[in-house]
Amino acid sequence: MYTLGIDIGGTKIAGAICDDDNKIISQWREPTPEDPEDINAVIVEMYRKSVELYGAVPRMGISAAGNVKEDRRTVTFSANIAQWIDYPLAERIEELTDHECKVIVENDANCAGWGEYILGTGRGSKNMVMLTVGTGLGGAIVINGQLYRGSFGMAAELGHLPMVSDGDFCGCGLRGCAERYTSGNALEHFAKSAVRRMPQKSKRLMELCDGDVNNLEGKMVSQAAQEGDELGLYAFGKIGEWLGRTMAAIAAVLDPDLFVIGGGVVSVGDILLEPARYNYVRFLQAAAYREHAKVLAATAGGDAGMIGAADLARIEED
Amino acid sequence: MYTLGIDIGGTKIAGAICDDDNKIISQWREPTPEDPEDINAVIVEMYRKSVELYGAVPRMGISAAGNVKEDRRTVTFSANIAQWIDYPLAERIEELTDHECKVIVENDANCAGWGEYILGTGRGSKNMVMLTVGTGLGGAIVINGQLYRGSFGMAAELGHLPMVSDGDFCGCGLRGCAERYTSGNALEHFAKSAVRRMPQKSKRLMELCDGDVNNLEGKMVSQAAQEGDELGLYAFGKIGEWLGRTMAAIAAVLDPDLFVIGGGVVSVGDILLEPARYNYVRFLQAAAYREHAKVLAATAGGDAGMIGAADLARIEED
Amino acid sequence: MYTLGIDIGGTKIAGAICDDDNKIISQWREPTPEDPEDINAVIVEMYRKSVELYGAVPRMGISAAGNVKEDRRTVTFSANIAQWIDYPLAERIEELTDHECKVIVENDANCAGWGEYILGTGRGSKNMVMLTVGTGLGGAIVINGQLYRGSFGMAAELGHLPMVSDGDFCGCGLRGCAERYTSGNALEHFAKSAVRRMPQKSKRLMELCDGDVNNLEGKMVSQAAQEGDELGLYAFGKIGEWLGRTMAAIAAVLDPDLFVIGGGVVSVGDILLEPARYNYVRFLQAAAYREHAKVLAATAGGDAGMIGAADLARIEED
Amino acid sequence: MYTLGIDIGGTKIAGAICDDDNKIISQWREPTPEDPEDINAVIVEMYRKSVELYGAVPRMGISAAGNVKEDRRTVTFSANIAQWIDYPLAERIEELTDHECKVIVENDANCAGWGEYILGTGRGSKNMVMLTVGTGLGGAIVINGQLYRGSFGMAAELGHLPMVSDGDFCGCGLRGCAERYTSGNALEHFAKSAVRRMPQKSKRLMELCDGDVNNLEGKMVSQAAQEGDELGLYAFGKIGEWLGRTMAAIAAVLDPDLFVIGGGVVSVGDILLEPARYNYVRFLQAAAYREHAKVLAATAGGDAGMIGAADLARIEED
Repeated sequence: MYTLGIDIGGTKIAGAICDDDNKIISQWREPTPEDPEDINAVIVEMYRKSVELYGAVPRMGISAAGNVKEDRRTVTFSANIAQWIDYPLAERIEELTDHECKVIVENDANCAGWGEYILGTGRGSKNMVMLTVGTGLGGAIVINGQLYRGSFGMAAELGHLPMVSDGDFCGCGLRGCAERYTSGNALEHFAKSAVRRMPQKSKRLMELCDGDVNNLEGKMVSQAAQEGDELGLYAFGKIGEWLGRTMAAIAAVLDPDLFVIGGGVVSVGDILLEPARYNYVRFLQAAAYREHAKVLAATAGGDAGMIGAADLARIEED
Repeated sequence: MYTLGIDIGGTKIAGAICDDDNKIISQWREPTPEDPEDINAVIVEMYRKSVELYGAVPRMGISAAGNVKEDRRTVTFSANIAQWIDYPLAERIEELTDHECKVIVENDANCAGWGEYILGTGRGSKNMVMLTVGTGLGGAIVINGQLYRGSFGMAAELGHLPMVSDGDFCGCGLRGCAERYTSGNALEHFAKSAVRRMPQKSKRLMELCDGDVNNLEGKMVSQAAQEGDELGLYAFGKIGEWLGRTMAAIAAVLDPDLFVIGGGVVSVGDILLEPARYNYVRFLQAAAYREHAKVLAATAGGDAGMIGAADLARIEED
Repeated sequence: MYTLGIDIGGTKIAGAICDDDNKIISQWREPTPEDPEDINAVIVEMYRKSVELYGAVPRMGISAAGNVKEDRRTVTFSANIAQWIDYPLAERIEELTDHECKVIVENDANCAGWGEYILGTGRGSKNMVMLTVGTGLGGAIVINGQLYRGSFGMAAELGHLPMVSDGDFCGCGLRGCAERYTSGNALEHFAKSAVRRMPQKSKRLMELCDGDVNNLEGKMVSQAAQEGDELGLYAFGKIGEWLGRTMAAIAAVLDPDLFVIGGGVVSVGDILLEPARYNYVRFLQAAAYREHAKVLAATAGGDAGMIGAADLARIEED
Repeated sequence: MYTLGIDIGGTKIAGAICDDDNKIISQWREPTPEDPEDINAVIVEMYRKSVELYGAVPRMGISAAGNVKEDRRTVTFSANIAQWIDYPLAERIEELTDHECKVIVENDANCAGWGEYILGTGRGSKNMVMLTVGTGLGGAIVINGQLYRGSFGMAAELGHLPMVSDGDFCGCGLRGCAERYTSGNALEHFAKSAVRRMPQKSKRLMELCDGDVNNLEGKMVSQAAQEGDELGLYAFGKIGEWLGRTMAAIAAVLDPDLFVIGGGVVSVGDILLEPARYNYVRFLQAAAYREHAKVLAATAGGDAGMIGAADLARIEED
């Protein structure tokens, strides 16, 4: 069976036809329009092309940045697309494709986590947790070979684990959420703080941001850290520490055998993973008396979410 | 099939023969000896009586306060019984019963949680979390009808969720663990703090502890609160607040449909549960955009752990 | 003796001739230029007018938003005027006025505090602390009738008292500073958080910000709170709580008899002061065994800083 | 003029006759009785001996562990001597010495701080803060050559600066007080935590406490650290970190030029002072733009409190 996987990102919509072995046979990429109906049109066009090339495409999985109801049909809220409030995305696409394709929608971090489980670092793990360190911090949980979605579709919102009582204000309205301390945004925060406090040590970072610390972005911090810059390494040390602390908190609930770390920020590799592993053990309850989960980088690549979405659609029970 | 359930507590060992409907047919109770071999002897004696009364008793489940390996045979560490370090409890009992009984060992909070799932408040829930508010704070997780034990048997150590960065020192060696803020110990802490700060409002509590705040115990706080004492209610308000915050943290991972609150401290009912429910919603991420788990008191009673242990033994796969 | 007081604000420069009784005889107001030399020119022009009207004006006090060295002559750093790095402001003005006027420079919060001490709520207090709740949180300390400046001119940076370990990121590069939790900025933060979490209760605030919570400003929160809006009152309750906690921390060091609360945010009066007083006592060490400082609103008005600067210049020893 | 200095400690009462140069001429030492009247008798006996030896002794200063009113005559509360509740100690001693000696009472940390200012490390400083790291954390402040006592005698309770929101429970009824993180008690806490978490690294500490971590005491941690033990050094690193953070908080209020560190725990020298200095700068607001206070060990010795009390009595205005 050929299945269509769609990944609706902030800037582009990617689509791919996958075979039963999760291999991509064909793929397309289009800019993300602003209007939801235009987004639908892009998706439907990808579906038409798929049918043209491969005949029947009975299932489609859509990865969307937002909260998705437990029935996998409705987006309740999306930070990217404001009009998606209780939006029946699956139903709309099914209508537009004349009910010839069964559509499921899943949260993007969940799709990426599932992709990692079937194709990447997660293969063979018993209980896996994926943390996606991008602008924010996304999460996915795979338990006994199944994506764990919770009772209402809201499981694995790991970026909003409360880590600090009365901590940093989060866009969600709470304080001290994990993603305020370990994410691309947090990397910027820690780097700016360091430059402001230790201007004499900030030469490389100041060059990269043309002398104005307010312009400092995460990718500059990554570059500086990879060049060995002291403050860049400091900033990664801090988000690594909090990544470790967040994993230790998750382990108190789930005791997984594997943490997979994905997202753009992990491209620096051990610069992030070393402090994360060290602090994971440092803050793990009963660390001396238990086996420890592995902490590994994601390997399934940037298409993992799209492929994961397709696979979730394929295995969905009728 | 008749199954024997054993609950090894700090002061007594309870045992019960249960039928296939989780009904207790016979039960015994003995003081807990200090020496592990003497504990084994008490268990074996209960087994002998069971066989005498009901013929073959092919399975036994033991509820133990401690960390149990994922194979359900070995206690790695117990706060109550110091000699239980990597102790092969299941094997010892199987030897002493001539390998005629298959034995499993499970953590006591897990057994109580399972008992609540099969007999009590948890029946019919999809994803249930139990929090046992006793001296400390125990946890159990049931996912899709199965006790969730993690990859290494250490899941659901919910009392050690980190809630406060640099918070109260915990006996586990970390700081800010949930059980430092919501447990019988925490109740005492909050009550003592209140009496020390507001001596003019502490009349009833001071009476109950004979005028010396250092003698204040949790049960006095429960009594005072039930009589309407202001500081007693304050102390329950605080552990209730933190119970709510802890549940909100757990929901960020598991998104369950039900929290069951058990343990001796919950005997005060809504005095604890009302602030817990209120603060659960107050600290729940995206509370306005999601369905909320129910928060209910446990109803399966004090034998739930023993019955739960027996049932876990019965359903264990060969 | 006539003395000139100057207040260099972010948008305007105010100047006033004061007599020996701290009465304003004449005053001027000009927009604040961007260039430091142009700022100097405005000040010198006000000095010329003063001399023209009143003959000799032998002393001038300048209130400046920034850190000032202990010799009261040099601004080491200013958030408003970037070119003021180790800037010898007093010397420049003395040169431009032909050394006929002795100039002192003082931090603006200190000038406002001194004005409050000589003219306003602070009169007669023994040890007074002023907290200026504006965009940020400024501080001033008067001990035994003298402005307390510390050994290096950096005393009373009360907005940067660390209140929360690993707390909200502050522009100073630290985390958890008091001004992140009690200030006009914090008011906005708390209000936005509340609207995001409780959209169904946010009607009035949403009207005031034209439906986009990102546009929400402190003055809208003040208006809503004064109209009785629930979320507006909540936000003031939170900054009031933290104002109280900050005062309790200060009392552990200074044990003053008076806190004066100034700044634009205090215009709402008891909406801010009531929660501040309540939480001051709630978090005050040994509250039941000590006398408590009064917590009162500032009364000296918007010219207090300018008059305070003039008075500090008058009483400065040669 | 000869002046009598008395230091009422938990186990001994020390007394000394001091001359105008703060030299001890004679001294005595007695066990501390339990009953307040017996304490008074010991003091009066020391006074009688003084008069016998040196003729008139018109003034006496008493150092007492407790809160003392601003009139220096009444102890409002003492953790050591339960009957001292609003106890008029100065009046009682004056009565018992036939009103021939003027008596003042002062808090023990204040006396030690004053002793350090007149005789020890503090000499010549402009604004000095002393932190006494004993079982708890005491404080004293000297501003412009005068002991700063606040408006109600409660200044410099620096051990109760709130450092962690929702932090460790303090005996004062608050949470997160500085002395919960930097004191002899805190040293024990950090060491026990480390041993519990890292038993494989705890060889030396386990020897010193005879294999039972519950017996671990501060002096064992000092010994182990001085022998180079890893966990002992870790525990000092932690209380040193928090000592630094506490000093940074104090600097936000007082901007002193000198911190003097006294108390039994500082006997390890740089093992405590190095992490304290490092973290002082790390957490100091605007550290790159200001002068830093010195952080030095106390040098006036164990009699500093007694001599300080005598000197405060001598210089007290009539």
